[in-house]
Amino acid sequence: MGEELKLLGVWGSPYSRRVEIALKLKGVKYEYSEEDIFHNKSASLLKYNPVHKKVPVLVHNGKPIVESQVILEYIDETWKDNPILPRDPYERAMARFWAKFVDEKCAPALWKSLMGAGPEREKAHEEAHELLNTLEGELKGKKFFGGESVGFVDIMANFVGYWVGVLEEAVGVDVLTEDKFPVLCKWAEEFRNCPVIKENLPPRDRMVAYFRDQRETITTFYKNKA
Amino acid sequence: MGEELKLLGVWGSPYSRRVEIALKLKGVKYEYSEEDIFHNKSASLLKYNPVHKKVPVLVHNGKPIVESQVILEYIDETWKDNPILPRDPYERAMARFWAKFVDEKCAPALWKSLMGAGPEREKAHEEAHELLNTLEGELKGKKFFGGESVGFVDIMANFVGYWVGVLEEAVGVDVLTEDKFPVLCKWAEEFRNCPVIKENLPPRDRMVAYFRDQRETITTFYKNKA
Repeated sequence: MGEELKLLGVWGSPYSRRVEIALKLKGVKYEYSEEDIFHNKSASLLKYNPVHKKVPVLVHNGKPIVESQVILEYIDETWKDNPILPRDPYERAMARFWAKFVDEKCAPALWKSLMGAGPEREKAHEEAHELLNTLEGELKGKKFFGGESVGFVDIMANFVGYWVGVLEEAVGVDVLTEDKFPVLCKWAEEFRNCPVIKENLPPRDRMVAYFRDQRETITTFYKNKA
Repeated sequence: MGEELKLLGVWGSPYSRRVEIALKLKGVKYEYSEEDIFHNKSASLLKYNPVHKKVPVLVHNGKPIVESQVILEYIDETWKDNPILPRDPYERAMARFWAKFVDEKCAPALWKSLMGAGPEREKAHEEAHELLNTLEGELKGKKFFGGESVGFVDIMANFVGYWVGVLEEAVGVDVLTEDKFPVLCKWAEEFRNCPVIKENLPPRDRMVAYFRDQRETITTFYKNKA
């Protein structure tokens, strides 16, 4: 078979990692190509994602798919083994709802609450708490958002499951604490310990160093501006 | 059959109308309930959408589905006649990509460019032009985003197809002009003239009056702040 599958990604990006997790859960082989997204975007990236010029891009037999959530649905519809989304239309709708909630509400609030500056950070901190509370309630009584195994929402929530802890260490602030969010903290641990997830997480030390640098740049920028 | 289908919506909301268009395209009967979203949210709305407390909410046999895009996918998976999304996984991915582009990029930029104030408005105006250019390119050579008939992207783009023209009239600014975007303008006309769409658009006069009021409130607020 002349099946060609290539992923353009960035090592520290939760969006790229979502796609890698899905492909690995499915047992689908792919070629990975690391992008220098900030300094030197490849000709492939510009060709295959002319609209956003961002990673991840999955190229299947020469045809590009863009946006991590869209890619996850494509993977699930193309390789049917080990389904990521539930089969029942209502449960699928619920998974899509929570995926959207995590991606569009929780992740940005958590990012600002950890990496933001000034009053924006304070506000985001409160907002993140409220959002995590809602997520905590949704997860109660379940091992994973997907039930007994990792599914669509768990993959979409990888930022909460891994990146948040890294950022907390990098900037010295705690948000996702066990006393406030015991269910989410347990989930995050289970998530990180799944073999497929574990072997696919970017190295923690390198991540912490990277975000510590980023945080300093942001703080300096904010000080000079104020 | 004890099938119960109820939609909580707001007459002037493009999000609510998306769901109505989809249900009407499918020929599915439903009961509609108008929400007073700004002054008096109903007990049903608070019960069925406790996370966002927003419309639209589709309640199917007592189970709520929230977020217009999620609802459209649910409708398409539950009532299979007159499919909204294409069958082929790659084409489905493309439809989801453009739906996201229209919903998360174009619509907010167009809204700010028409209803925003001050420098934010200027910036959004430029951004909206760039985004519409991209959309114009995607649509070239096609009658609808969905091909020969209205599909997922067309429904998601209803804000561009109808609301933008209303807002332009209400605030006296032109964005989507025929000389700059002939393909999109032709599409918008075709879209509005589809029988199912046509009979489901909110009345233009009421909309113009409503948005003119809104625009005045925003302008007054901005003047008092500046």
